[in-house]
Parts: sequence; C-alpha cells; structure tokens
Amino acid sequence: MLENITQAQIKQMTLKELLALCEEAREKITQTVLKSGGHLSSNLGMVELTVALHYVFDFPEDKVVFDVGHQCYTHKLLSGRCGDFSTIRQKGGLSGFPKRAESRFDCYDTGHAGTSVSAALGIAKARDIKGEKFSVIAVIGDGSFNNGLVYEAFNSLRLLNTNVLLILNDNGMSIAPTVGSMHEYLEILSEDITHKQKKDKHAKIFERFGFAYDGVYDGNNLEAMIEKLTEVKARLKTQSVILHVITKKGKGYAFCEENPEATHGISIKNSEEVKEEYSAVLGRTLSRLAKNDNRIVAVTAAMTSSLGLGGFFEQYPRRSVDVGICEEHATILCASMATEGLKPYYAVYSTFLQRSFDEIVLDICEQNLPVTLCIDRAGISGADGETHQGVFDLSFLSFIPNLTIAVPKDIKEFEKMLEFSANFNAPLAIRYPREGKRIFEVQSEIVAGKWEKLIEADGKYVIIACGERAVTLGIAAAEALAADGIAVSVINARFVKPLDSALLDSLKEKFIITVEDNMLLGGFGSLIDVYFSGDKKLIKNFAYADGFIPHGGVTELMTEFGVSGEAIVNYIKSNEN
Amino acid sequence: MLENITQAQIKQMTLKELLALCEEAREKITQTVLKSGGHLSSNLGMVELTVALHYVFDFPEDKVVFDVGHQCYTHKLLSGRCGDFSTIRQKGGLSGFPKRAESRFDCYDTGHAGTSVSAALGIAKARDIKGEKFSVIAVIGDGSFNNGLVYEAFNSLRLLNTNVLLILNDNGMSIAPTVGSMHEYLEILSEDITHKQKKDKHAKIFERFGFAYDGVYDGNNLEAMIEKLTEVKARLKTQSVILHVITKKGKGYAFCEENPEATHGISIKNSEEVKEEYSAVLGRTLSRLAKNDNRIVAVTAAMTSSLGLGGFFEQYPRRSVDVGICEEHATILCASMATEGLKPYYAVYSTFLQRSFDEIVLDICEQNLPVTLCIDRAGISGADGETHQGVFDLSFLSFIPNLTIAVPKDIKEFEKMLEFSANFNAPLAIRYPREGKRIFEVQSEIVAGKWEKLIEADGKYVIIACGERAVTLGIAAAEALAADGIAVSVINARFVKPLDSALLDSLKEKFIITVEDNMLLGGFGSLIDVYFSGDKKLIKNFAYADGFIPHGGVTELMTEFGVSGEAIVNYIKSNEN
Repeated sequence: MLENITQAQIKQMTLKELLALCEEAREKITQTVLKSGGHLSSNLGMVELTVALHYVFDFPEDKVVFDVGHQCYTHKLLSGRCGDFSTIRQKGGLSGFPKRAESRFDCYDTGHAGTSVSAALGIAKARDIKGEKFSVIAVIGDGSFNNGLVYEAFNSLRLLNTNVLLILNDNGMSIAPTVGSMHEYLEILSEDITHKQKKDKHAKIFERFGFAYDGVYDGNNLEAMIEKLTEVKARLKTQSVILHVITKKGKGYAFCEENPEATHGISIKNSEEVKEEYSAVLGRTLSRLAKNDNRIVAVTAAMTSSLGLGGFFEQYPRRSVDVGICEEHATILCASMATEGLKPYYAVYSTFLQRSFDEIVLDICEQNLPVTLCIDRAGISGADGETHQGVFDLSFLSFIPNLTIAVPKDIKEFEKMLEFSANFNAPLAIRYPREGKRIFEVQSEIVAGKWEKLIEADGKYVIIACGERAVTLGIAAAEALAADGIAVSVINARFVKPLDSALLDSLKEKFIITVEDNMLLGGFGSLIDVYFSGDKKLIKNFAYADGFIPHGGVTELMTEFGVSGEAIVNYIKSNEN
Repeated sequence: MLENITQAQIKQMTLKELLALCEEAREKITQTVLKSGGHLSSNLGMVELTVALHYVFDFPEDKVVFDVGHQCYTHKLLSGRCGDFSTIRQKGGLSGFPKRAESRFDCYDTGHAGTSVSAALGIAKARDIKGEKFSVIAVIGDGSFNNGLVYEAFNSLRLLNTNVLLILNDNGMSIAPTVGSMHEYLEILSEDITHKQKKDKHAKIFERFGFAYDGVYDGNNLEAMIEKLTEVKARLKTQSVILHVITKKGKGYAFCEENPEATHGISIKNSEEVKEEYSAVLGRTLSRLAKNDNRIVAVTAAMTSSLGLGGFFEQYPRRSVDVGICEEHATILCASMATEGLKPYYAVYSTFLQRSFDEIVLDICEQNLPVTLCIDRAGISGADGETHQGVFDLSFLSFIPNLTIAVPKDIKEFEKMLEFSANFNAPLAIRYPREGKRIFEVQSEIVAGKWEKLIEADGKYVIIACGERAVTLGIAAAEALAADGIAVSVINARFVKPLDSALLDSLKEKFIITVEDNMLLGGFGSLIDVYFSGDKKLIKNFAYADGFIPHGGVTELMTEFGVSGEAIVNYIKSNEN
C-alpha cells in the first residue's frame, strides 16, 4: 500500500488497513536500514504515532517538526518518498533527516537536539501574524527534552501567545538511557498516565508554562493514538498541548526491543580495513592514565558508548559524568572542575561541539583552563549529511586565544597525544575521525607546536597534511609523484595551533601544498596563508570549498569536494608543466 | 571601614557596624560609577546580600560564582580591592567582572548569562571528588534564570549528587523587566515569601530538581539576610538549596530605584563627537521599512532598548518578540518564522551572538533562510573587557556557507544596507560598532558583494578597510601619506562575504593593506590572504593578534593591539625605505 500512497488515501483507510500500513512501513524500514544503515530502533517506535498523525492532520498544510529528525522515516514513507526510500543516506538519495529541499512535507530541517519546540513556536507565531489557521506540531524525544533550548521555548510560550502541539515521544532513551531529573519526572507522569490516561496533579510544571498536559500510555497502539490526536486537534484552536506518549524503542523487532542502544543507529561496515576506532583508543588510554592520575575526569553529553568511554565510566564512576544532551552545561562543568585542579576531558562529536562555542571561548579559553576537548567524528562524517559533518571545527576553534589544537595522524599518535595532554596545563583540543585505518612508520615524540617530517625529498614541493585522512592522501600523492620523478616532501602538521613556525620558516623557498579534512575558510590551510601573507609565497590549499556537504560516503564526498590524492597529484603535475 | 578591610574584621563586626559598612559600600559604588561608568543599579541592590555572604561564609575557601558578574562590586570592595576600586573598568585597572587572575576571591570568570549554576555544580563536584568540604554558592538574577543553561544544570543536580547554594537575586529585571513564564512563576513565589517567609506548595518545580526552596522577602534587610544565610549554610552539608531573595534594583539611590533600566549601566560620554548611534539608525530604519513590508519582524534577547528597537516594539507589537536572555531560542524563532515567508531581524550584541553559533550554521544557513542578523557592539567594545569584546564575529561567521556578511562604513551606509536587506532573500549579517562618528562623502549604491572606492590614487598601495573604524583609520593614513608624497588608494570593503573578486583581481599588481576591527585569524584580512594564496602576492593585515583583549578605552585598545592609523602609516613608510 505504501508505494505512491497519498494523504487522501490514508484518510480513507479503515483501522485494519492502517494497521496493515504500519506493518508494511515497519518492514520497509527494517529491511532498508539493515541493508543500508541508518536509524532503526527510534524509527520502529514511531510507526503508529506517525501513521496516526497523517490520518488525523492535513499535511503539508499542517506542519510537523521532528526534533533531531532521525525518527522521520515513516513520515518520509507516507509523504511520497516510498519509491526512493532504498536510496536513503546514500549519495544523491534521500536524506536520513527532514529536508525542506527534499519535500514540501518537511517544513523544518533538524539534526541537533532540542530545536523543535522553538521552531514550532516560530512557525505558529508566523501563522498567527499572517492570519492563517493550520496546526503546528513538534515531535520530541525524552532525550532531547533535557536540552536547555526546550526550557527557553517553554518559557516564551505565553509571551508568544500562540498554540502548538508538542508530542513528547517518551521511550526512556537518548541514545543511551535518558538521565536527569526531568526524566525522573517524566517517569512519574508516565505512571500516572498508565492509571488514569489523563492530566493529573503531577503535570503542574507543564501547566505553569502554559501547556495543557495529556498522555497516551501506549503510543504503539494505533487506535488510541488516533483517538487522542483527534481530540487534541480540536483543542489546539484555543490552547497549546503537551501530549506525552509512551512508545517502545525498536517496537516490533525483538532484537531491537532488547538492544535499543546498540540498534539506535546501524552502521554498515564497508570493505575497507579498520585497525581500530579512535574512540576505542580514547577509552583505553584515558582509563590507563586515570589509574595514576586521580585528577582525570571524563564528561559526555549522552554519547558515552559511541565516544568509547563506556569502560572508563564503569571503572571510574565517581570521575565520570554524562549530563544528557546538554552540550553547553557539559562544557562549563569541565571548565569549573578545572578551576579546582581537576583534569577534565570532554568527549564529543565535532558537530555537537558547535553548540559549546561560546563556552569554549569564555569558560575554557578566557580562563585558560586545562580542559581537553576530545573531538570525535571530525571531518566528513558521511551518511548523516549536512547537519552532522564535522568540517567546521578547525574553523571555529583556530582563532580562539589560549587554545592549542592537535590533530593526530593515526591512532598510535593519538595515544601519545593523550599522554601528552595529561601533562599539558592549558586548553587543548584533539580532533580525529571515527576510523583509524593506518599506522604510519614514523612515530616521533610529541612536542607542543612541533610538526613531524614523514617524507624528506629533495624537491621544491612540500605537502603539509593535517590528520590521518590528509596524511594518507599526502603520502599517496608523494609516492605517486616520486614514481614520475617529482620529489615531494610530506610533513605531518600535528598541531594546527600553534603552527610550527621554525619549520615553516625553513620552507620559504618551497612550494607548500596544504591538505586537510575541514573547510578551507578558517581551516588549517588558511592559517598557513595568513602566516605567509607578508612573504611573496605561492601556496595551494586542499580543503573543502564554501558550501554545505550533503550525505554520502566519506571518500566519495572528500573527492567531490576537492580533497583527494588524485587532485593533489594532478595539481602538482600541472604545475610542473 | 572599607579600606583594607579583612574577612576576619567583617566577621567581628556588630550589626550596626555592618550596616554602616553597607552604606559606605553603597556610597563608594555610586560615586565611582557616576564618575567612571559601570553597572550601577544592579550593584546597589546587591550590597546587603553581599555583606551578609562575607559575614556568614569563609571566602576564599568557600566559593561564590556571580552570574554574568556585573553585580560583584561589593564583593570586590570586601575582598581587598577597595583601594583600587576607582580604577574599575579603566585600562590596567580592576575589571568590572569577576576575574580569577585579579583575585583569589574570584573563583570563576563570568560575563554571559546563565553559566553560574553549571559552574557552581562543577566546583562542588570537584570538591566532592577531592574529598574537601567548602561551600559553593551561585548568585543569579531572575533575568539569567530564563537561560536554558540553568535548566540543564538543574536537570543534572541529582545526577551529580552534590550540594550547592543557589541565591536567586530577584529584582524583576533583566536589563529590561524580565519576561516569560518562569518570571511569572517567581512572582507567585515571591508573594508567598511575603506572607510566610518559608517554602510553600508553589515551590514544587525546584524541589522536583532536587533543591530545597527557601526565601527572604527583603534581601536589602541585612539582618534577615544574615539570619537566613546562617541557617542555610548548615543545611548545605546535606542538601542543595535555592534561596529566593527579593532585592530592589538601585536600592538606596532614589533616581536608580525609579529608573532601574536606564541606570543598569552608566556610560560616561567621552569628548569625541558622536553623530548617532547605529542602534538608533536600526530602530528608525526598520520601523520605516516595516510600514510597507508586513513580513518584517524583530526579535531580541532582553536588550530591546539598547539595540534601538524600543520604538519598533511599541509601533509593531504583534511583529516584535523579546524572549529574554535566550539567544539560541531567539535565533531559531527567526529561522522558523522565515520558513513561513516572514522577514525576521535578530538584533544582538556581537559577544552574545557567539551563543547562537550552532543555530546560525544549521537553522539559518543550512536552510538558507532570509534572516538578517543585526550585530551591534561589534569590534572592541571597551570597558567591559574580555568577555564582551565583539572581536570574534567575522571569524566565526566568515566560513559559514550561504551567509552574506556586510559591514557599513558609516551610519548612512548602514541605513542603505538595511534597505538592501529587505529585498535580500538569503541569510545576511550586518555588523557595526556602537557609535557612528563620521559620515563619509562617497555614498554609492549597495550591490551584493561589491566594494566601494573611496580614494583612487595612482600608486602601488591599496588600503582595503572594513567598517567605520577601519575606514576612518585607512583614510587618515592615506591622507597623511599623501602629504608625504606616497599615493595610497582606499577601498571600503562593504561585504566581507562574498569578497569583491572582480575588484580584487584588478589589484594583483598592487600592495594590499587590510584593516579591520576583528581578530586576524578568520577575520577579513585572512580571507584576502586565502584569496591570494595561489598568487605571489605581498599582503599586510592590520587586525588583532591572537589573545584576549582586556577592558579599556576603544581607541587605546585598538592602538595597543595593533590597529591604528599610525601603525599603518609607519608600515607603509618603512616599506618605502
């Protein structure tokens, strides 16, 4: 039924047909994700809720904003994208997140947690200003509900004097189980719903902010969802409603129901060899260092396992903090613990570090505190697309005073950098991709601000590469060019800040080629351009040109956006001619 | 008594002596601020509370974090800085904010709202890890209480399993009167305190997060404050407490009590002529444009008047939103209203825009929405110091795809840019300083990405300047050099992004000098360096070197940090020799 289904057809279906539609969607999602990767458990839990939304509301006139957006697969299937669904997360195919550019059924692009309530309020406010009448819905998980943005939005609901429906999709999980007092509160509320199915004395907090509160005990019961949404839709004309819906993450697929964290996202391993993930190196190295250094503490924001810190958290529970999806708070906790002489490590994906920018500048760096940022999934991260690429971190970190930025060329060097960090008494950022694929022969001692020569050739070209992917490309290019008789040196720029000025000064007569896995503007190469702006020096930067990078494979995207061994080789050859 | 007072002396004082100390502090603050500028009303309201803190707690062993930090003057007076107090906010003198580098009584640097609860929790957690026993206190105003960070910290209190005292200094004001549902809730609570002076049924929200709640109706009553703090101090061994204290902003100075918003911060006008503040131009131009364009909406985060939008808000209340100190939420509101065809203007100080970095990238620019960021107090802002300088905005904006960045050379051009913005259908940032001091003769039409030639001279030097301050310096330098027979052209770089590539390409044979009021790294000049990295081109950048810029006068700081007409003249002259 899913193929080519229309909104009108959905509305004419019987309950039995709708239930069959749910099963078909569930099957389609499971088969597709197991084959291509993507978010699984979260989408399985959302099937009935989404079918009910499409049955009761009128999309795209009505608007639904999905918080984070990873749970929108059923919505995609029901809004004309079933035929293309097998292409999801692949280059040129459907995005794994809502995209306005992809469909008029996607009213707002999301990717990071907690933005949906603000977005729904803005859309509703605009509707009121324009004198229109449609309904606006935000669907938010209990994990996102920890984020401060939700409170900011709540606080302004009455002020904005508008009405929205907020569906709180409560499955008890962020990626890991949800933590925090708000979650404990939701658990109390969910027990109330179980017994009474209606608003009760505990829901005062939400009412205080202007929301009516209601609940559905089993959000995977389609009939109950349709009934409640129909009732709530009418109330939206005069009030805002929080509908607290209890769903089962992984619903309908026993393995997922039993392993919701492991099946939150499914990665399809490609054929390329991976020696070890950087996260694993972080986990075991930090655990080892912490044995003899009781100043070391680890802080995460709801991603402990994915960041490799599961073992550390088990081994050192008193020195471990997962604050939930509160990236800013996590950053300040690190800074403030450092004022008391502790040595905090904040592990985070590059894309989510963007949320702590102000706190990195003021709390960590202005106070010059020895916090280490462990920035995972740096560079192109691949299938999650625009909202998750880690290609901005060098750009938004490189100009911050007092911050040292290190980029390991492989996992072995990463381990050494972590050892180095333990005795480094100032703000430090270490950025690295997910997968460690190579270990290079040259392995010299880490000295702050000093680079490492990997290939010393007697020619005019010097490739300065930053990070494993870039170093790999640089060495491959140098080897290919050597075979053609063009001598190219390769330098591992372990530190993006400070630059190795002594080494750079020795290269004044050379032709420098920079390579990195970051945007050109503000990135490593641009720092070299600035360094030599007072000299008559020719430099060529390989980095990503101005533009958002969509989803796709890491290597194919790197190549398309201008960073590849072939591009370097071709450039140097053309320069020779 | 204040001069050279010690903590031990404070603790031995009688109530009468302490009251006299309060009066002396109040007098000292008033006289100093009226003479030198600074935060007045907020500090006058805090005198008794601060004296009581010093009487009851043991600083610096106990720690107090001041949210934002502008209300710490009495604390400075009581912690050995009375003798230097007359130097406050002046170059080389005391900072107007807490600074660890200034005194061991300042345990945490603040400047932006909402960070104090997280910082107090981190300090307390570190204390527990180290097995120490001191008390940790955060003092936060009701304005900051709107910020999402507070919620994130609350949510993790139980998780962190530590105890802190949170003093909610409730004077009903942010800078403007506080808005939002949390504020309404605090008003209900404060009425309860009035009648009962103890925790009551309304305080359930705070208890839900693990805080005991208590209150002091008149926080300017020293005896009541001392009594309550003494009692609370004992309770801190076993629990966290929110102490809700009602204070009077501007207390003890009738003019301030009656005009708390106008006297929040006192600016001392210097002798230099100001034609008009940019904020005034923003207000009247946006009001004019909104008359014929009902898509225009204005959004602020608790700074409406200072941003010049008081009139707009009065004239167009349905199209005006002040969300309180919620910079991220404000940014998403703009993006989401834009998805519905509205034309939002988010007016904000440069330093506070840092907090919306992730939302600018993802919500505004990834969706390519026509939101205009009106960035006030850009460049060095002066007396507030490190935490308030607007010197990073070009650096953190210039690499964001889809964003156009405009920088007016004077208030007249700013007005034209606002007219231009109304018909510009993509993300746009306009950055400007507070004061408009000059209006230049050349005033050409605004075309996206096109620069303007101000002085065309037949010589090898071209100064490309960005913004009023830089253009002023550039023209002064060119005129001085012309008098010495050195011909220098001057270009107004109205757009930092996109660059005027046609014009730049015509300058390949010239010696380019860039001038700006921003950090070198990532700033305007660095974009020029990157642009010409493939050419053998000599460029000289005048911008701020890597480092935090402390408080002081705008011109003296610009000069000290390397951006002055004299520096440009000297450089070009030395290059001639």
